[in-house]
Amino acid sequence: MEKLECVFCQKRFPLDIFSPFCPICHEPLLCSYPSGRRKRFHLEKRLPLDRFLDFLPLKRIDPGLSLGEGDTPLVPLKRVAKKFDLPPLWAKNEALNPSYSFKDRGTAVAIQKAVSLGIEKIGTVSTGNMAASTAAYGARAGLETFVLLKEGTAVSSLLTAGIYGPRLIAVEGDYGALFRKSFSLGRKTGICFLNSVDPFRIEGYKLTGFEVFGQLGNRAPSFIFVPLSSGGHLLGIMRSFEDLKEAGLIRGYPVIVGVQAAGCAPLARALAAGKVSYERVRRVRTIAHAISNPAPPAGRLVLKWIRERGGMIVAVSDGEILAAQRMLAQDEGIFCQPESATTLAGLLKLRKRFRLKRRDRVVLIITGCGLKSLQTLESQKIKLQRADLDHLAEKMT
Amino acid sequence: MEKLECVFCQKRFPLDIFSPFCPICHEPLLCSYPSGRRKRFHLEKRLPLDRFLDFLPLKRIDPGLSLGEGDTPLVPLKRVAKKFDLPPLWAKNEALNPSYSFKDRGTAVAIQKAVSLGIEKIGTVSTGNMAASTAAYGARAGLETFVLLKEGTAVSSLLTAGIYGPRLIAVEGDYGALFRKSFSLGRKTGICFLNSVDPFRIEGYKLTGFEVFGQLGNRAPSFIFVPLSSGGHLLGIMRSFEDLKEAGLIRGYPVIVGVQAAGCAPLARALAAGKVSYERVRRVRTIAHAISNPAPPAGRLVLKWIRERGGMIVAVSDGEILAAQRMLAQDEGIFCQPESATTLAGLLKLRKRFRLKRRDRVVLIITGCGLKSLQTLESQKIKLQRADLDHLAEKMT
Repeated sequence: MEKLECVFCQKRFPLDIFSPFCPICHEPLLCSYPSGRRKRFHLEKRLPLDRFLDFLPLKRIDPGLSLGEGDTPLVPLKRVAKKFDLPPLWAKNEALNPSYSFKDRGTAVAIQKAVSLGIEKIGTVSTGNMAASTAAYGARAGLETFVLLKEGTAVSSLLTAGIYGPRLIAVEGDYGALFRKSFSLGRKTGICFLNSVDPFRIEGYKLTGFEVFGQLGNRAPSFIFVPLSSGGHLLGIMRSFEDLKEAGLIRGYPVIVGVQAAGCAPLARALAAGKVSYERVRRVRTIAHAISNPAPPAGRLVLKWIRERGGMIVAVSDGEILAAQRMLAQDEGIFCQPESATTLAGLLKLRKRFRLKRRDRVVLIITGCGLKSLQTLESQKIKLQRADLDHLAEKMT
Repeated sequence: MEKLECVFCQKRFPLDIFSPFCPICHEPLLCSYPSGRRKRFHLEKRLPLDRFLDFLPLKRIDPGLSLGEGDTPLVPLKRVAKKFDLPPLWAKNEALNPSYSFKDRGTAVAIQKAVSLGIEKIGTVSTGNMAASTAAYGARAGLETFVLLKEGTAVSSLLTAGIYGPRLIAVEGDYGALFRKSFSLGRKTGICFLNSVDPFRIEGYKLTGFEVFGQLGNRAPSFIFVPLSSGGHLLGIMRSFEDLKEAGLIRGYPVIVGVQAAGCAPLARALAAGKVSYERVRRVRTIAHAISNPAPPAGRLVLKWIRERGGMIVAVSDGEILAAQRMLAQDEGIFCQPESATTLAGLLKLRKRFRLKRRDRVVLIITGCGLKSLQTLESQKIKLQRADLDHLAEKMT
């Protein structure tokens, strides 16, 4: 019988696909592995899921469910590094996944699990990237897919999930309440909800860490910056380096830095105040919608692990985010969501505090494609000149 | 001295980086290779450009100019194949390139060439994907980059190129005239224009063909469908299989099918009428803006090669394009630009004429990311239901 574990209660529970939360303390459960199993990479395999299968809670991979996720580039950022006198710096470009965000890493694993368990309906509660990703993989697998969105979600988000043909439902009421209620409704209606802190999603995010390790020549980076919202992505990346350590492939952990938007930074605040738990943010005020979760479901777990493993959480302003988005595009040629640019903003903010060394290796996780948030570009002053054909030469000097 | 060749005049000319056209007949020139040079793949290399260097007009690759282009997935389309009783069918997903379109393949090679020749300013004439791609690679290389757009270009296109910080100039007047004039202005001002039929761009598109060959287990597909606009992309893909044949890796050519939108199909019409030359389209009427070139600069060459090598050109209606876009998303989980969906629409149109066999292998080239054309999604009826939290269960059955 497959088990999930609660990090807080230190107990293991049989897998309940309709409710991945601890029945005692209600914190998110994580996948549990029998210890001592010999694990290795199978780098000769074509699909990333097959390459890292030993480290996943799956027995086999159905290639028919894959959309070609993963194998994303690790791009050196030499201009930015030089500009700020930083050690070697890279962007792991997760925007180049099939639905154009890192969410596909998680959905790819969660859908393998769901299909292997005979699930026929899946769902998600999301306003953006996760909605599109779940709808894409649901369509691919031929599952009926329910996407629950907040009433008032931007039309562009409706369209980018809606094109895959899911059952799209706009729900009036509190978003946190909807998140929690989705699980009980799911159990009643046979819909398996793959929400942000789904334990199989979290396992999927490990592949990003494994790939970075390989792309750096089988070495861990010194620092990894990752946008921080519900917490699932950061936990997955932390777990990948835990796995690498257990497998004897690395010695120390990288410093993982979660980055929040200052206008919605419950975890940065809690960590700074030395608290084990966070306070729900009453008023969200940021352009970084995709990471503005006022009550992150995995928040307590993130705080615990960040403390135990010497990580950090930092908050950056909208101005810093937009400046970093512009810098990534104009100096390096990478056009990402503002939420992804928080990573560079966070690095620039912390660089003095860290006293970075020449031999450090810093990786920014770019989570999503800039085309998803064209509306925020309007605040990026873009200069357009005008000319007619006869006077064009004058403008070209 | 590096040479370019004219297929029509059968002459070779020294490379003039400011004007890649035949000085005699004004048709686009192509890269010319010394024959007999022993060529092979270097599959152990990390960057696709390095893997296929023997087949490129470059001496070495500067990895600093790369954005991680290529290595895109070849995704089996089993549901669509089953629905229409087709032989094995794949999508080569070129939308997963750094600026989210196939153009990056060409820009990646053209920028290597430009930098190796000491060029400091580049430019392009484009309304969409090529503008973004050229601006991205120009930023990456630290070159001053000029993007000339038609006055009246959609704001979203301005933004997606503008974010990379190029000199963005909206030009009043005829687009074809602007395309031609850009080269003479470029020579005067020292700006190297990398427009749609740039010979080095065309060489870059070959990598798509090489990757497909490898992903199919070192076999050529039987049919390749590719959206057809200026002609450069199709010519590049044709050249890749010519190269594979010359290297003794395949025997026959695949049938290459160029697909145009019926509302702007100068080459489909010319081929059907048995003409060697096309008539300029007076009135463009299609949602597929990215492939609506009324006077394709490489049109004559495309017609010649399609005839000589048993290819085809087909035109599909906007209705067929939108239906195919929906099908790719809803049956397969791939959200592409309408222009890319022309490939599936073309296949569905021609499938009876071809009498496809079980052992045929069909590949569709998906050229760009659906997020680039959200406005056309509004014509895709997307159904949204509404509920409040208390009545949500009723909607979930």
